[in-house]
Amino acid sequence: MKHMKKILLIYLVLWSYVATAEDGHGLWLRYTPISQEAVLTEYLQTVDHFEVHTSSETGLLIHEELTNGLTSMYQQELVATEGLEHSLQVCKTDHSLVKGLGIDAGIKEQIGAEGFLLRSVQREGKSFLLLTANTDIGLYYGTFHLLRLIQTEQSLVGLDVVEYPRIETRMLNHWDNLDRSSERGYAGFAIWDWHRLPDYLDPIYAEYARANASIGINAMVPVNVNSNALILTPMYLEKVKALADLLRPYGIKMYLTARFSAPSEIGGLATSDPLDPGVAAWWADKAKEIYSYVPDFGGFLVKANSEGQPGPHDYHRNHAEGANMLAKALAPHGGQVIWRAFVYSEENPVDRHMQANDQFVPLDGQFDDNVSIQVKNGAIDFQPREPFHPLFSAMKETRLAMEFQITQEYLGQATQLVYLGTYYEECLDAQIGIKKATVSEVIEGQSNEQEHSVIAGVANIGTDRNWTGHLFGQSNWYAFGRLAWNPDLGADAIADEWIAMAFDHDPQVHATIKDIMMHSREAAVNYMTPLGLHHLMATGHHYGPGPWVSELGRPEWNPVYYHRADSFGIGFDRTAKGSGAVLQYQKSIAKKFGNLKSCPEEYLLWFHHVSWDYEMQSGRTLWDEMGLHYQSGVDEVRRFASQWESLEGKVDARRFEEVQMLLTIHEKEAVWWKDASLLYFQTISNRPFPAEIETPKGSLAHYKRLRFPYAPGIKPQW
Amino acid sequence: MKHMKKILLIYLVLWSYVATAEDGHGLWLRYTPISQEAVLTEYLQTVDHFEVHTSSETGLLIHEELTNGLTSMYQQELVATEGLEHSLQVCKTDHSLVKGLGIDAGIKEQIGAEGFLLRSVQREGKSFLLLTANTDIGLYYGTFHLLRLIQTEQSLVGLDVVEYPRIETRMLNHWDNLDRSSERGYAGFAIWDWHRLPDYLDPIYAEYARANASIGINAMVPVNVNSNALILTPMYLEKVKALADLLRPYGIKMYLTARFSAPSEIGGLATSDPLDPGVAAWWADKAKEIYSYVPDFGGFLVKANSEGQPGPHDYHRNHAEGANMLAKALAPHGGQVIWRAFVYSEENPVDRHMQANDQFVPLDGQFDDNVSIQVKNGAIDFQPREPFHPLFSAMKETRLAMEFQITQEYLGQATQLVYLGTYYEECLDAQIGIKKATVSEVIEGQSNEQEHSVIAGVANIGTDRNWTGHLFGQSNWYAFGRLAWNPDLGADAIADEWIAMAFDHDPQVHATIKDIMMHSREAAVNYMTPLGLHHLMATGHHYGPGPWVSELGRPEWNPVYYHRADSFGIGFDRTAKGSGAVLQYQKSIAKKFGNLKSCPEEYLLWFHHVSWDYEMQSGRTLWDEMGLHYQSGVDEVRRFASQWESLEGKVDARRFEEVQMLLTIHEKEAVWWKDASLLYFQTISNRPFPAEIETPKGSLAHYKRLRFPYAPGIKPQW
Repeated sequence: MKHMKKILLIYLVLWSYVATAEDGHGLWLRYTPISQEAVLTEYLQTVDHFEVHTSSETGLLIHEELTNGLTSMYQQELVATEGLEHSLQVCKTDHSLVKGLGIDAGIKEQIGAEGFLLRSVQREGKSFLLLTANTDIGLYYGTFHLLRLIQTEQSLVGLDVVEYPRIETRMLNHWDNLDRSSERGYAGFAIWDWHRLPDYLDPIYAEYARANASIGINAMVPVNVNSNALILTPMYLEKVKALADLLRPYGIKMYLTARFSAPSEIGGLATSDPLDPGVAAWWADKAKEIYSYVPDFGGFLVKANSEGQPGPHDYHRNHAEGANMLAKALAPHGGQVIWRAFVYSEENPVDRHMQANDQFVPLDGQFDDNVSIQVKNGAIDFQPREPFHPLFSAMKETRLAMEFQITQEYLGQATQLVYLGTYYEECLDAQIGIKKATVSEVIEGQSNEQEHSVIAGVANIGTDRNWTGHLFGQSNWYAFGRLAWNPDLGADAIADEWIAMAFDHDPQVHATIKDIMMHSREAAVNYMTPLGLHHLMATGHHYGPGPWVSELGRPEWNPVYYHRADSFGIGFDRTAKGSGAVLQYQKSIAKKFGNLKSCPEEYLLWFHHVSWDYEMQSGRTLWDEMGLHYQSGVDEVRRFASQWESLEGKVDARRFEEVQMLLTIHEKEAVWWKDASLLYFQTISNRPFPAEIETPKGSLAHYKRLRFPYAPGIKPQW
Repeated sequence: MKHMKKILLIYLVLWSYVATAEDGHGLWLRYTPISQEAVLTEYLQTVDHFEVHTSSETGLLIHEELTNGLTSMYQQELVATEGLEHSLQVCKTDHSLVKGLGIDAGIKEQIGAEGFLLRSVQREGKSFLLLTANTDIGLYYGTFHLLRLIQTEQSLVGLDVVEYPRIETRMLNHWDNLDRSSERGYAGFAIWDWHRLPDYLDPIYAEYARANASIGINAMVPVNVNSNALILTPMYLEKVKALADLLRPYGIKMYLTARFSAPSEIGGLATSDPLDPGVAAWWADKAKEIYSYVPDFGGFLVKANSEGQPGPHDYHRNHAEGANMLAKALAPHGGQVIWRAFVYSEENPVDRHMQANDQFVPLDGQFDDNVSIQVKNGAIDFQPREPFHPLFSAMKETRLAMEFQITQEYLGQATQLVYLGTYYEECLDAQIGIKKATVSEVIEGQSNEQEHSVIAGVANIGTDRNWTGHLFGQSNWYAFGRLAWNPDLGADAIADEWIAMAFDHDPQVHATIKDIMMHSREAAVNYMTPLGLHHLMATGHHYGPGPWVSELGRPEWNPVYYHRADSFGIGFDRTAKGSGAVLQYQKSIAKKFGNLKSCPEEYLLWFHHVSWDYEMQSGRTLWDEMGLHYQSGVDEVRRFASQWESLEGKVDARRFEEVQMLLTIHEKEAVWWKDASLLYFQTISNRPFPAEIETPKGSLAHYKRLRFPYAPGIKPQW
């Protein structure tokens, strides 16, 4: 009775916390109770205590995570007794425990530096679960894997899991500025409080590191690719060191963006010409200085000669000359250069789609071993749907890295529910036209034996309490990390994982949320840019539609440059008769995309200028089909909203209401996209809307008048 | 047993939340368990259940707060039974329950629209606690008062409390821009997510409203006094309405800043001349429009003809002509104009200290009834110490409002622990030289029968998880609110309240924290600007010392303008022989401050230019005394740090470590201020440091070289 009273007290003091506990900050690491008695019973008969046989900082994190996770999910304090029976043993492969368990060298080699083995074993008649790895970080990843199995209530009986990452560097790019504004950030502001670093370490840094480690992300760049040389000065390197020291036990390496003009900007040199010996020496010294602060510094991410950033072209040098100069500065310390292929130039009249290939293909094979070329998934710019970037099939002698965008610059920012797992999968699984090779194989390096493979995601993390602005933005962070670990996991399975961990166990909740997620991206494509349309957003903030925009300084900044609508039809002719961009793909792909009949309709207007009256597979005209796609996008969002309504009382109140409010905005924005786009295109097609199309809410003039002076994600316009 | 198991489960599922629960977000509303058995017993015998006899939205908030608070502090679910005995009865004064309890009309009149009566009463032999008020909001304030008594473990026996606010409008001014940057904000960014308003209501808005209601704050301005006319456009008024609707049940009225040039900027008029009939009509229509969105809109806060803001002087009109024009637009709707007296002009060569009086005193008595003049506590600008503003004694026929700064622009920003309760008290209690009248009486209106009294604080609230950047910034938000309710409460008693509520009940913790808080502001004055020195901070961001700065465009922007150090001595001669500013005070005050001998040493260099060799009360020379003050400031901060260390394990880990890290920074910054200031002044005094002064850590050249390009609190310099 006394005991019970004590518990009663504890229960009640916690009561007030609980009310505010579920605010989304817990991400997919909520460790909610096992929902089925039978499952819990099985777990207790498999693992009722654990021992961690490594005392490193990472070892302490493992111990903390297991204690926290198992206690919370089991709803019981763990058995204090030691001994093998029913235990989880966490130790490195060189530990005595592992000897004589018949784990062959092959597996040890296979799991490498970050993988792990999770196996039910027998020893001296005792059955226990062994988690082993060659490194502490491998054990940490294995810990999260085991906890995920329990979170998703899978059986632990006869477990035999061998896991290792398929891509070496799994990285987040934060487009965060030193003043904490976040370019294309929609979750508040940058979490990096540079001003109070190095002495004040915001607790969110450790929370950030743990969340990333739980999905295997092992690298990050805390500063914008539109770079600031200040980050390379001692004042900031002190801060960088403090952050890197904190991230290290979580297995996360720090990289920095290198401003190509830094030698002249902060080095006092007269030039930043990569072939100038003084410049090369400056970078070599700078690299040495950085490594004196951060011994395991990852290297430089560089955006050069793109959108006004400085680069080797400023000195009539090419990208290889620029990248290799930096590579040679980093090489002695084991650092890498990650050089972005997202380039298009001020003056170049050539189809923007082609410019990256034009600049990089001739340099194939000329890059140093510690250089990777980071290529966006598509040739334009993270549009709702893009065919895979032709560079992935065109540079066979160069290490290519993938750049996905996690932050939803063009996919609803922080107000629309769009799950990007299906987007990433679509690109990774695309066949590049060389045998059966896919984009993911190119990244992994299987197709041409590359080491040091890299996949990067532009982060959607900010100061908002739920990390990502929109609760469902968390699923995109999660999906990116899981696919970076294993590109074959599949968006469907990843959605199942995330839902099971981010929400409580309720089949209806799970099924409903999954249905919304799995249809969300296609809906966005339909109400924004169906059938291969692209780059039709408003200027600057990219919030909402602006297909009519035609007066911007550079042709390729204007939506009209991309849709090319005229009295005949709509679409960008990139066939041999047009810009010829399709010829940058391998023959088989070029043939398929380049032929009006064989080109998938989802890419139709990406590659072809098509008559309004062209007969689509449905038998409808292009104009009617386009209208119905826009309408179906809107209809889907309405369906999502009513689906979500059905979860009231089944999803915790605060998160339910937040998503409910955002779905209201989502529906308004979908209608806005449909109305503004169709009304504008109608002024060119001069055709009536098919009967199924809802009458537009506002006039074209109204939609053209809309202005959003302080929309997030861009540098404020004072 | 079954029951116990269930509780056991609940306990354990909550376990994981608790680990992260104490992050400072709970402010002074943590409702921790009663620490003493005896006290709990007394409470249970006084109030073991409650009934709320009002069903308004505010009534629901009262019910929620009492349930949450009492359950959490009592550690017990409340008795479900009804009935008077041992109950708390919450009802308005016109409720039948109140009849026949002998509560006389005098009290009802005294408590007015926001006050309350909290009394132990007997009825039909039943003893219960009555909380009554004339309004729902009065009941809400009374609820927080009762909960505060319990949080601070005071007896409820024979309770008879009559409380009402002494100042009518108790307001927060948020210097927040529409892009969410926050001028002089050091707690992250503005919490107002304008982009997603009106449809998305961030849960923090309700948390903000509740926290303010708990200390009686009943008005707010969500936008910067350096104003943006966009807030007055329909697109933003939609958002303003959503926010105002949310704040209303919490008793909080919204005001907006009115950009004086709005008629020309957004109204399409050729002028914004206040005497132009078209301009007056535009503002009248605009006011009508605003009230159509927000029926209880509070009115306009205006910064005019100060630091580049537009105003009536642009049209050769005076402040009264400008303010009254706006006042006439608001009057039909019951709105108020709050017009700031913080003015100093580009060209005016007169001592900045004098310019507000020069401009406003001649207008005394000319302002409309619904105008208040908002005066900063001192004549310069929220310096670590200032004598009270002479305007408080110079405008007898004008309603004067107080403007304090809660955000620590000049008092350590978010890295130094400085409790401002003592600062506010010092100003409010100052005698103005008219009979025994104090500044607080002028604000309250007792000295000259003013209604609609106003006190404003520049908010220190931002997106940081703990609201205020530095945990102890919460005590300044709290102290402002409590003093606004009752200026006589005293900084000491308020510190006791806050500590008891913000930390767990532990006498050593309480005493240690209080000792630090009560000495913190004097320490800051000493290591920054002792003996009446002022305005010696670095340019722009005001972070750190810059006493040597002399090259800024306007004389009064330069620290050298204020300290006037030369071979003879240091200080600003504001006597009759100098600028004459002291003569703006009432005779008795002018006599005291104006005489070198009678001037309090804490204001010495504010009013006098004094020889380095001047003999201070200590017998030391001014030069030596100044050095010792700087040193003592540093010594105090070191003492705070070691005091705090002694609380390890007694204060929850996360908050302990956060404050510990910040005290490390605090000490570095105190040393920086001392070193940089003394080294600089020594180049002018040419005198050795007294033996007690620590050798400076860096050289003057080093300190002069320091730059902080992205220091917080100012608009980022792209």
